[in-house]
Amino acid sequence: MKSFSVQATDGKARAGVLALNHGLVQTPIFMPVGTYGAVKGVTPQTLQAQIGAQIILGNTFHLWLRPGLEIIQKHQGLHRFVNWDKPMLTDSGGFQVWSLGDLRKISEEGVAFQSPVNGDKLFMAPEDSMRIQHVLNSDIAMAFDECTPYPATREQAAASMQLSMRWAARSRRAFDDLSAQPSYPPYALHPEAPMANALFGIVQGGMFEDLRTESLRALTQIGFEGYAIGGLSVGEPKDDMLRVLAHTAPQLPVDKPRYLMGVGTPEDLVDGVANGIDMFDCVMPSRNGRNGWLFTSQGDLKIRNARFKDDLLPIDPACGCPVCQPQAHGEDRPHFTRAYLHHLQRIDEMLGASLATIHNLSFYLNLMRQMRAAIQAGEFSSWRRDFAAKRASGV
Amino acid sequence: MKSFSVQATDGKARAGVLALNHGLVQTPIFMPVGTYGAVKGVTPQTLQAQIGAQIILGNTFHLWLRPGLEIIQKHQGLHRFVNWDKPMLTDSGGFQVWSLGDLRKISEEGVAFQSPVNGDKLFMAPEDSMRIQHVLNSDIAMAFDECTPYPATREQAAASMQLSMRWAARSRRAFDDLSAQPSYPPYALHPEAPMANALFGIVQGGMFEDLRTESLRALTQIGFEGYAIGGLSVGEPKDDMLRVLAHTAPQLPVDKPRYLMGVGTPEDLVDGVANGIDMFDCVMPSRNGRNGWLFTSQGDLKIRNARFKDDLLPIDPACGCPVCQPQAHGEDRPHFTRAYLHHLQRIDEMLGASLATIHNLSFYLNLMRQMRAAIQAGEFSSWRRDFAAKRASGV
Repeated sequence: MKSFSVQATDGKARAGVLALNHGLVQTPIFMPVGTYGAVKGVTPQTLQAQIGAQIILGNTFHLWLRPGLEIIQKHQGLHRFVNWDKPMLTDSGGFQVWSLGDLRKISEEGVAFQSPVNGDKLFMAPEDSMRIQHVLNSDIAMAFDECTPYPATREQAAASMQLSMRWAARSRRAFDDLSAQPSYPPYALHPEAPMANALFGIVQGGMFEDLRTESLRALTQIGFEGYAIGGLSVGEPKDDMLRVLAHTAPQLPVDKPRYLMGVGTPEDLVDGVANGIDMFDCVMPSRNGRNGWLFTSQGDLKIRNARFKDDLLPIDPACGCPVCQPQAHGEDRPHFTRAYLHHLQRIDEMLGASLATIHNLSFYLNLMRQMRAAIQAGEFSSWRRDFAAKRASGV
Repeated sequence: MKSFSVQATDGKARAGVLALNHGLVQTPIFMPVGTYGAVKGVTPQTLQAQIGAQIILGNTFHLWLRPGLEIIQKHQGLHRFVNWDKPMLTDSGGFQVWSLGDLRKISEEGVAFQSPVNGDKLFMAPEDSMRIQHVLNSDIAMAFDECTPYPATREQAAASMQLSMRWAARSRRAFDDLSAQPSYPPYALHPEAPMANALFGIVQGGMFEDLRTESLRALTQIGFEGYAIGGLSVGEPKDDMLRVLAHTAPQLPVDKPRYLMGVGTPEDLVDGVANGIDMFDCVMPSRNGRNGWLFTSQGDLKIRNARFKDDLLPIDPACGCPVCQPQAHGEDRPHFTRAYLHHLQRIDEMLGASLATIHNLSFYLNLMRQMRAAIQAGEFSSWRRDFAAKRASGV
């Protein structure tokens, strides 16, 4: 990573710029999730030109299983494989192997598990995760960690966090060794690449503030290019999430990007930014969109509901996305109506899933742009009040 | 319909322009099929701006059942419902009710059938089909006919064709009565609309040349704005199709557009144009695309085949479509590789279906543009030879 700079603050909220091998990212930012490299039903061109995505997330675990590293290596990394030439972040695979439940066994060395694709016996250690992310050539790699279950006793949470901290140190060493040998020749488009990609550490510690502080200290002693908060949005009450967020986020190093993993609703993103978070990812806008759950400035909307079957309005009249806005010239031009999206969802037509995903991701990215502008204008508090009031007003 | 004019001929092949309420169509043309109004997995904007579609086809039968006429009427027609402001053609529904088999009963009056959606008892007569297409506000409506089964005896084919001709006369009368009262106020974009939309008659007669001639005479006595050949591509050997096409197409009125319904492969389209056909529709490029069957200038390619799993080439290096061509700037920029499309198809990711459909439809539309240019240059025969040789060369 070249640099991260905070350009403006408003309370704890920050607006910054992150310089990565594949381009600049203006923060706060939301990263659409492309599990297998693709954001389901959306082309990279639409993601970039119409939705305004600046960085997307790929899943190390899924890509390792399919198509496998050999294929991605032949493409000189994940960017060319998925045809996305902007920055990418990859998770470590830790959360996915942890989610396998009975199919995995965790030891000091790493995680033994059965492939959910073909039943093969596999093993992933911090060194493996770093090697895979090196082949993917992620602009930002994540340290390999164990996600602490919820609920967990203090002892369970402490032991899990300490294991993650030992794995974080191993991730750092393996990452640095690999970075000494860049994976691929520099791209024509990026004459200064390859500089070293970035490695982020992940704060764990469950719902216990003191463990979160201990985890953070361990990570800053190792030293990372950015710091993430993991182990939230795992089933805990919203109050617990906010408590841990408010405790942890402001303690993260001010001169490094801060990433709240796997969170969340629009309101969660606002809470995150208010606490000084710079980066977010979540499957919610894409996954919910495919099922007809649409986010709007006036609250959420379930488009399959019968009340929308003859509704001629766009999803959100206040939204500037390519689904809500007229596409053609002329005064009285059509847009995609709620009635049409209702119809597409009811007949299970995949265009309905694509359009809903495009709208939801646009809503999320636009939300981040609004927050960035409010922070730069020093109006984040009043913006936040207005946003909450409008969201609560109902569609 | 305002007019149809033939601008150039080369042998029997023709290049023309069709002026419809929602715009001009340069022929020969291929019409992508949007069963429920949407081309599966492709936005109207992509269809128009990236694929170059000029007219698309909607299915009267499917739209009548879902979402139903009331919803479409509220949108002032199908164009606004699906957010497509260029010309649309709708079929009559005749082929779909005929395809229901045991679920339908045909009489002189029309077809009684059970809704495949909810089991309702429904009835469709020529007058119903015209009324539905009037509400859809199709630029081109098709006469309601019975598709002659294959194989059929001469007697069966004659009786079926004669019923279709009586229905064609009833379609014409009903269409003209409805056209006297335009469905909707004129669109701002089309100050001269609504003029009367167009009604096309459909030549039937099975595999019997004399019945085809008799059908054609009956239709021209009624008088239509265009003439279609129906009842081909229903399971007959390719030789029979070519024989009936070669017999029928050149007899169709020279000053009206000629439409070969439901056909076919790229080679079929070339045969059709060589025989003087102006318009085509087929589900093949979209349906096959969704299953990984891709058309290229060097022959067809099944992308799920293991040989493509690490192939870095685009689908068709000679293709200029947005899937085959680099999307970003710079010298050494990526495109979507065969390996990536193979991966998307293997994991059943819907982006794979979308990209394959975009490529296949682009290939078909580009094929039509090539033929049009060859006809205008008086080089259709040599173009046809080159095309056939290259297509046979293999991927």
